[in-house]
Amino acid sequence: MSATPPPIKIKIKIQLYCGDEIAMGPGKADLLDAIADHGSISAAGRALGMSYRRTWMLVDVMNRCWNEPLVETLAGGSHGGGARVTAAGQEILAQYRALQDAACGAAGGTASWPALKLALRDEPLAAQKAG
Amino acid sequence: MSATPPPIKIKIKIQLYCGDEIAMGPGKADLLDAIADHGSISAAGRALGMSYRRTWMLVDVMNRCWNEPLVETLAGGSHGGGARVTAAGQEILAQYRALQDAACGAAGGTASWPALKLALRDEPLAAQKAG
Repeated sequence: MSATPPPIKIKIKIQLYCGDEIAMGPGKADLLDAIADHGSISAAGRALGMSYRRTWMLVDVMNRCWNEPLVETLAGGSHGGGARVTAAGQEILAQYRALQDAACGAAGGTASWPALKLALRDEPLAAQKAG
Repeated sequence: MSATPPPIKIKIKIQLYCGDEIAMGPGKADLLDAIADHGSISAAGRALGMSYRRTWMLVDVMNRCWNEPLVETLAGGSHGGGARVTAAGQEILAQYRALQDAACGAAGGTASWPALKLALRDEPLAAQKAG
């Protein structure tokens, strides 16, 4: 049996801009998923290995770029509140995921993709030593 | 006449990996175009505002990730040589552009895209001042 070569990867990153700000992208979409899972912005950020500051910044940008907020914080409760993804946020996340799926499916369905895979090495050659 | 709102942008970035290295992406594709235009790696990098070091690093990565080199340097000549995109490089660039076009066309053709455009503001709200 021969060893299986590592899979050749294609990464497709879709960013939606509002003015100069990125209203939605892969990181923000994952953060929405994590907020839905954890019910807390801070816990979601921790789960994704992001700093507290960065996590809140991403939420703030999302909430400023769309007609309705995507995340809302909940006051009170035994844990001093929490957060949830709004109905608008869930809808936008679903539409963004559909956009990702369409782009990946189309790219993978072209004749170009198998041609590119054939031309790629399984592993890069070693880098040249600096002179 | 009302002022035209700024166009809502979608950016789709496709990266092809070989092992852990990015064998092709938007920056490398643009660099191949620039090398074809300028006939020189250094001039291409300057035209794109990239450092000499980074330009050569990108060429080196590309040349190590594919079965054939994408860029070859030419010895001699009145300008001390130059560079050109190989036939393999031209082919891979064309296939990569086809992949980009397919992904963008598919994303733009979904029902999700007009829905997302409708939900996006023309401009983000102002950022909150830090407390």
